[in-house]
Amino acid sequence: MNKDELRQMLKKVSSGEMSVDEAVNRIKLSTFDEMDFAKIDTHRGVRQGENEVIYGEGKTAEQIIKITSHILKNSAESVLITRLSEEKAKEVSKEIPLFYDKTSKIGIAGKRNENKEIGNIVIATGGTSDIPVAEEAALTAEYYGNKVTRLYDVGVSGIHRLLENADVLIDAKVVIAIAGMEGALASVVGGMVDCPVIAVPTSVGYGSNFEGLSALLSMLNSCASGVSVVNIDNGFGAGYIASMINKM
Amino acid sequence: MNKDELRQMLKKVSSGEMSVDEAVNRIKLSTFDEMDFAKIDTHRGVRQGENEVIYGEGKTAEQIIKITSHILKNSAESVLITRLSEEKAKEVSKEIPLFYDKTSKIGIAGKRNENKEIGNIVIATGGTSDIPVAEEAALTAEYYGNKVTRLYDVGVSGIHRLLENADVLIDAKVVIAIAGMEGALASVVGGMVDCPVIAVPTSVGYGSNFEGLSALLSMLNSCASGVSVVNIDNGFGAGYIASMINKM
Amino acid sequence: MNKDELRQMLKKVSSGEMSVDEAVNRIKLSTFDEMDFAKIDTHRGVRQGENEVIYGEGKTAEQIIKITSHILKNSAESVLITRLSEEKAKEVSKEIPLFYDKTSKIGIAGKRNENKEIGNIVIATGGTSDIPVAEEAALTAEYYGNKVTRLYDVGVSGIHRLLENADVLIDAKVVIAIAGMEGALASVVGGMVDCPVIAVPTSVGYGSNFEGLSALLSMLNSCASGVSVVNIDNGFGAGYIASMINKM
Amino acid sequence: MNKDELRQMLKKVSSGEMSVDEAVNRIKLSTFDEMDFAKIDTHRGVRQGENEVIYGEGKTAEQIIKITSHILKNSAESVLITRLSEEKAKEVSKEIPLFYDKTSKIGIAGKRNENKEIGNIVIATGGTSDIPVAEEAALTAEYYGNKVTRLYDVGVSGIHRLLENADVLIDAKVVIAIAGMEGALASVVGGMVDCPVIAVPTSVGYGSNFEGLSALLSMLNSCASGVSVVNIDNGFGAGYIASMINKM
Amino acid sequence: MNKDELRQMLKKVSSGEMSVDEAVNRIKLSTFDEMDFAKIDTHRGVRQGENEVIYGEGKTAEQIIKITSHILKNSAESVLITRLSEEKAKEVSKEIPLFYDKTSKIGIAGKRNENKEIGNIVIATGGTSDIPVAEEAALTAEYYGNKVTRLYDVGVSGIHRLLENADVLIDAKVVIAIAGMEGALASVVGGMVDCPVIAVPTSVGYGSNFEGLSALLSMLNSCASGVSVVNIDNGFGAGYIASMINKM
Amino acid sequence: MNKDELRQMLKKVSSGEMSVDEAVNRIKLSTFDEMDFAKIDTHRGVRQGENEVIYGEGKTAEQIIKITSHILKNSAESVLITRLSEEKAKEVSKEIPLFYDKTSKIGIAGKRNENKEIGNIVIATGGTSDIPVAEEAALTAEYYGNKVTRLYDVGVSGIHRLLENADVLIDAKVVIAIAGMEGALASVVGGMVDCPVIAVPTSVGYGSNFEGLSALLSMLNSCASGVSVVNIDNGFGAGYIASMINKM
Amino acid sequence: MNKDELRQMLKKVSSGEMSVDEAVNRIKLSTFDEMDFAKIDTHRGVRQGENEVIYGEGKTAEQIIKITSHILKNSAESVLITRLSEEKAKEVSKEIPLFYDKTSKIGIAGKRNENKEIGNIVIATGGTSDIPVAEEAALTAEYYGNKVTRLYDVGVSGIHRLLENADVLIDAKVVIAIAGMEGALASVVGGMVDCPVIAVPTSVGYGSNFEGLSALLSMLNSCASGVSVVNIDNGFGAGYIASMINKM
Amino acid sequence: MNKDELRQMLKKVSSGEMSVDEAVNRIKLSTFDEMDFAKIDTHRGVRQGENEVIYGEGKTAEQIIKITSHILKNSAESVLITRLSEEKAKEVSKEIPLFYDKTSKIGIAGKRNENKEIGNIVIATGGTSDIPVAEEAALTAEYYGNKVTRLYDVGVSGIHRLLENADVLIDAKVVIAIAGMEGALASVVGGMVDCPVIAVPTSVGYGSNFEGLSALLSMLNSCASGVSVVNIDNGFGAGYIASMINKM
Repeated sequence: MNKDELRQMLKKVSSGEMSVDEAVNRIKLSTFDEMDFAKIDTHRGVRQGENEVIYGEGKTAEQIIKITSHILKNSAESVLITRLSEEKAKEVSKEIPLFYDKTSKIGIAGKRNENKEIGNIVIATGGTSDIPVAEEAALTAEYYGNKVTRLYDVGVSGIHRLLENADVLIDAKVVIAIAGMEGALASVVGGMVDCPVIAVPTSVGYGSNFEGLSALLSMLNSCASGVSVVNIDNGFGAGYIASMINKM
Repeated sequence: MNKDELRQMLKKVSSGEMSVDEAVNRIKLSTFDEMDFAKIDTHRGVRQGENEVIYGEGKTAEQIIKITSHILKNSAESVLITRLSEEKAKEVSKEIPLFYDKTSKIGIAGKRNENKEIGNIVIATGGTSDIPVAEEAALTAEYYGNKVTRLYDVGVSGIHRLLENADVLIDAKVVIAIAGMEGALASVVGGMVDCPVIAVPTSVGYGSNFEGLSALLSMLNSCASGVSVVNIDNGFGAGYIASMINKM
Repeated sequence: MNKDELRQMLKKVSSGEMSVDEAVNRIKLSTFDEMDFAKIDTHRGVRQGENEVIYGEGKTAEQIIKITSHILKNSAESVLITRLSEEKAKEVSKEIPLFYDKTSKIGIAGKRNENKEIGNIVIATGGTSDIPVAEEAALTAEYYGNKVTRLYDVGVSGIHRLLENADVLIDAKVVIAIAGMEGALASVVGGMVDCPVIAVPTSVGYGSNFEGLSALLSMLNSCASGVSVVNIDNGFGAGYIASMINKM
Repeated sequence: MNKDELRQMLKKVSSGEMSVDEAVNRIKLSTFDEMDFAKIDTHRGVRQGENEVIYGEGKTAEQIIKITSHILKNSAESVLITRLSEEKAKEVSKEIPLFYDKTSKIGIAGKRNENKEIGNIVIATGGTSDIPVAEEAALTAEYYGNKVTRLYDVGVSGIHRLLENADVLIDAKVVIAIAGMEGALASVVGGMVDCPVIAVPTSVGYGSNFEGLSALLSMLNSCASGVSVVNIDNGFGAGYIASMINKM
Repeated sequence: MNKDELRQMLKKVSSGEMSVDEAVNRIKLSTFDEMDFAKIDTHRGVRQGENEVIYGEGKTAEQIIKITSHILKNSAESVLITRLSEEKAKEVSKEIPLFYDKTSKIGIAGKRNENKEIGNIVIATGGTSDIPVAEEAALTAEYYGNKVTRLYDVGVSGIHRLLENADVLIDAKVVIAIAGMEGALASVVGGMVDCPVIAVPTSVGYGSNFEGLSALLSMLNSCASGVSVVNIDNGFGAGYIASMINKM
Repeated sequence: MNKDELRQMLKKVSSGEMSVDEAVNRIKLSTFDEMDFAKIDTHRGVRQGENEVIYGEGKTAEQIIKITSHILKNSAESVLITRLSEEKAKEVSKEIPLFYDKTSKIGIAGKRNENKEIGNIVIATGGTSDIPVAEEAALTAEYYGNKVTRLYDVGVSGIHRLLENADVLIDAKVVIAIAGMEGALASVVGGMVDCPVIAVPTSVGYGSNFEGLSALLSMLNSCASGVSVVNIDNGFGAGYIASMINKM
Repeated sequence: MNKDELRQMLKKVSSGEMSVDEAVNRIKLSTFDEMDFAKIDTHRGVRQGENEVIYGEGKTAEQIIKITSHILKNSAESVLITRLSEEKAKEVSKEIPLFYDKTSKIGIAGKRNENKEIGNIVIATGGTSDIPVAEEAALTAEYYGNKVTRLYDVGVSGIHRLLENADVLIDAKVVIAIAGMEGALASVVGGMVDCPVIAVPTSVGYGSNFEGLSALLSMLNSCASGVSVVNIDNGFGAGYIASMINKM
Repeated sequence: MNKDELRQMLKKVSSGEMSVDEAVNRIKLSTFDEMDFAKIDTHRGVRQGENEVIYGEGKTAEQIIKITSHILKNSAESVLITRLSEEKAKEVSKEIPLFYDKTSKIGIAGKRNENKEIGNIVIATGGTSDIPVAEEAALTAEYYGNKVTRLYDVGVSGIHRLLENADVLIDAKVVIAIAGMEGALASVVGGMVDCPVIAVPTSVGYGSNFEGLSALLSMLNSCASGVSVVNIDNGFGAGYIASMINKM
């Protein structure tokens, strides 16, 4: 059952043409797998348009292997695993085919998507220290088939670096602006483009940076319209939202 | 010169086919009006795809009238004015044709856009006290021609109110989720739809709400993918971004 | 002297029928053991209806052994030890019979209560990472004889997981809602049940979660009536209070 | 349809004996009234065991009158209105029979409950300035039929005032401990009783009190077991929860 | 006794050529005037190179008049008064010749300095709402004889406005960058010039701006070297420091 | 030159009977030793009535040995060293006679004061985890010759433990109240005694304790008069101030 | 019964020579007056050595009159009322003889103490804006019979003002150091004297002062030994503690 | 092309005498080197008057070597590397000639500047623990050719240490005041000199120091004019700005 079929069915339910019960029965088999320590939401691919993602932090390698195997066997060809440490990645790759990227700590189990040509998401960072977060966003977006253009180390303290790449920005369908410290990149980029900007504050910095608070507040208070913000260091979230918008 | 022409020209500049100087000369006349107390960015309509917006707070009625008149005469048919108090609205309307909405404190000077049929932006609020922020978002989105569906007072403490409107949410192209207090609406909505959700924390609440901080942090930490956040009470920003996405 | 006898006696004191002095003498022997580094409150079982609990963090294995032995010898059949690290648990178990649970870091010295049939406490968590806190609550509640129903990984971003377990929630006499990140679970559960909800924010999350602050504020600002909150990660406290209420 | 009938029906739905659709149809008429500015949750009385409560702050007198009239006509004999300013109370009382208490800003529209004999809720405050919050709690609890014992101005800086009333506390089925400044009352009371304590921090104080933050943190960190906390100044919430527990 | 004479004398004291006692006697008459409610530091002009400045907030018009008269009679030709409300300015001007500027709330009592030709201080603001703070800085700098170039409303969301004025910035000897909201202006300007930048965060904004905190943190974390920061809204401080540097 | 002689001399200087220069010469030899990495304030014993104390944290064992040796040779019979880690203590004791206490991390180099009979300082703690801070205070006070009475683990959640020791508290000349978590001990003790109470918040606790913030705010907001506060975990400071007061 | 008699009696109780009951009966008549809205602690004069003080904020003029009258009639010759607004002072003075000081908002009802010759408390302030807090401290200390020396406007930015008054500070038995903004006065004074320093942060300042937070943190972190801190703007508390110490 | 030539050229562009395009072409070759992980801003030496600086934290030794080699080969004789750990310094020094200072963690690759005679920057610290930050500032300033006078351990709790060095301060052209804990040094120094003071808060301290927050707020609220502030522990920033000012 694909997304459109599901949508049609749900509308029938809302309008009374089909009972909720009946609907539930139809989608039941594929949706919800109970494991002893987790309820895997295999239907999320249908409901939200993307497959289940596993947040690797706070899960053991063993738990990750179990959940991933289950999903690969039942409902998807690949699984995205974020915040996967190198040690856990090693463990997982013994049991399951795994692509792993050290910088972003992203793992992709199963068959990796080779098609990355949808639209154009530009990912800009203020400095080189923001790259791990940027790569989390980039690999997430590519996992969902989007074309990603990387524009790293173009922070506002050397504004000409950003301006010389103005044409790259102007061609974007969505921009992800990633910066720590004062987080000014989001505002400057936001004033240069006419597409949505997803801002990601990073915890890069020290002292009154307060673990990313300065960049977070800065981005939330951006004087440029068109900027919305995700959690500190949340590269995955930004890549996911950008993918949603880019595919519209 | 429309947006596409501008884009073409800027690309020529980036590629070296046209000098920046030449480009600047071509767009100079229309872009940048110097007043004694403000530099009006009349070109923003071109660059960002939307007309200049005036943030009414902290400006006198007199200043608003001057800037608005200038824009209406030179570069646009209408001007959106946000955070316009009733008293200032009265002053402005003596000099300039003005639509004014008390709830949202939105004013629209000049010719109001009657066409509101693009796509579908659903605006959901947790309670009735969030409505002023919601209307700021709604009127902003309608100003830019978007179709807006209002879904007010569907907060999570009575989850069935939200579920009974699931079909409205599923039909959205973008959702704006507006809530104060604990801001849980964004997460719940984010888990129900497969389109981008713009979350707006409001300062509705008291005590440890700390003027909207609780809803802000809650939304930034949403466990649902697809949620990005704007500043506390920033209805305009949400409406503007939603419009960008909805028109894609 | 059991609780009712104590209560009768204290009332006589308040009304003047018995002198405080006399009362103090009667209860003196059993109540208050002075050790060189701690004043063990052995009477607490009487006064508060439950036995002394040892907070293991910040105490050495040696101190824990001494206090536990003392209590087991003088005033109780078992002792609950919270936040007991694996290493200390090993040390303690060399000297004293100890049940130990790694996930929750709970230890029970002496004779473990096998009867867990009182009432019904439902413990719900937003994710799998909240389970250690949940188990601290669950084992605490079971230690005091309560029936506990676990409902883990039912976070609001997949609201159907929660709804499909609505009947479990409706049968609860008390609910403990445990969640990190945005902490929305407490509000949603609070709106679904007509019994008290004890909310436990956890430090699960990152960035603007600020070590549990986001979930804490979210839960304190819950728009659902019937929700009260304990300290971040305080599974023991929640289990203890739930037990009090459940036994009423 | 009373609560038990509803519970039976919902269980049938969960077990599959009845379709959700059928269930929805059966409860539809009585549950959910759509007004132009609010969705009144008339079914809440059934679902949560208590009637709808109106939070008066941020609503106009006119809105309050409309909602109250609607409820009184359709689903309840009385409505509790919290945070109702004196001016609004005057307006409301012109249209609807209203009991109003200036200190707590509580209004009760319709027929006031005269029976206040269930169990025993003791409400203790640290000082006289905490009385408005205490009365909000007291009148809420009495509205739901509970017996309330007031124990005001027994703050810990004069510990003998509290101790001389130990018998009052010992007879409580639930205690509400309300204090501003350093909020120590909750801990001291929590150590004296063997029943649940609902702690309410108040914004009474100045300087580093930071609008109630000091009492809030103090209460969340209480070293006494059995204490849970609600939002700053949230007398209503405490009264509501205490009522739930007291009626068990 | 001018500054150089004083410096010579103090060096003699340090080296032991003159006793501290003797030195104190020599400078005693002119330095320190005791009034009943304030100790006027008339020697500050000598010690710090500038005359006494009166911070008007929290002083009554009467107190300001007394101190100002005293200074004008004994030690200076003019006095700078900051944060002087319009009402107080009216009172003061009845007794003392006073220049007053409503926007910046700056008053200058006595003979106003007409010579403003030293060096070149450029004052840039992000928006029009920052102008009151900017004028406080500008009038302070001009009061001390500096040439001031105003560059208002050049915020980073319309980066071309700033770039088109690059030549003005490049000619500066010191720049004062004033901005609220996200405060990005300081970083961008800091990356464009090779002179010191004094950053002034303003409280302009709302929501998570938290009264200027976002701009403050942003500026303290500037990724551009050469930026130092003063208190929120402290136009006077920035003007004073810029004057010190500009006169070098 | 003892304190009274110094005081006389300084008064002559103030009144003009003696030149500052002459005074400086007289006290010069003994007061101020320049080392390459520190300026040892050997005169502080005279000026403040107590000898130099070395804050061990952030200094290498080598630096501590150098400074200590210097002081022992030139100006004092013993030196108090606070926050001295066990490893550093080992190093120091190889070179200098050293008393060392592991719990408090206090070291005393040179001849330890055996006389501890002045007045009566009572040191009370809320729990056993506060003992390290309490011992820092106790050993500091004893170092300066004060009699110290320890009253540990008398936290307010078992208020009878505190009350049973009321006579100990009533005999105090100064009380030091040390507590983490909610810090209520200071208020309760403050209400029981008529002598100054020095409150020391500790970082004992977790979650919303925020590293001692809850106890700090609680103590600053104490409703009991007579309570003043020092920094979190600052046992030394409390012991030092208590000594000052106790010796009056 | 005076303080020494009470002390003797309490010791007998502790040692078991007298029953608590008997003791309670003996002191009962004088200690505790129940009014309908407050429990007046008339025994506090005995227990804490000073009379009851009324905190005027948050009490109506009527309540203040009732409590004051009661105390004056039953247990004391005068009552200190703090934070008494001018309007309330007017109301009170119609019913009761009242000394009132506008600057400090202190009222003294009944017979004012004329004897102010005990010891020597020096009160220093950083600026003139700190005077209201300083006078609250000064009048409190004088009320209890202490000699007070005022040293106002000696802030550290003009360090010579402070140094020229070194002899005044050296003669103090206790110093109260009151400052807003950066609060450095406490540290500098703390390094100059060998007596206890009570530091009072004030809310004087703006911007990143955050209502007194900057001075509060500064004083808590004072590098000078001998400094303890009270709440922001708490002049009364400082005066009360200083009186306790000064009378030793 | 030196700075003056560049400045002339940019002015021609601004006035229209030269096209931006032409200007860009002229400076292109030397300005901007693209590496795979970083965009090296080799032109910054020209634009900002100083060479590129490498922030070592968050970069691998390998990355540092690559960037440094590139710069040394193409555009500069030396490179300043800040926050370079000892381990990385070892790695780097295997490939590139490197001066390294353990205390400040500063590395200088290439030919070290031997000329340190420009002007006079005085660097004062409150304690010995602030020395690492001070040396970061000192070595930075010396790297750029400035004369640096060190004045360490002159904190305000022993104010005479500071005063005895008044002549050193008076001779400064710029002062850098570095202090942790309460950060009062900046204010006291600011009141003693008539030159700009750059204040550096350090994270030295504990408890309510909150990682440098107390010193930061203290310095931002300095009551002395002429003080501006950089980020916590930002010795490099202070040295850089001081160098800018000192060279004027």
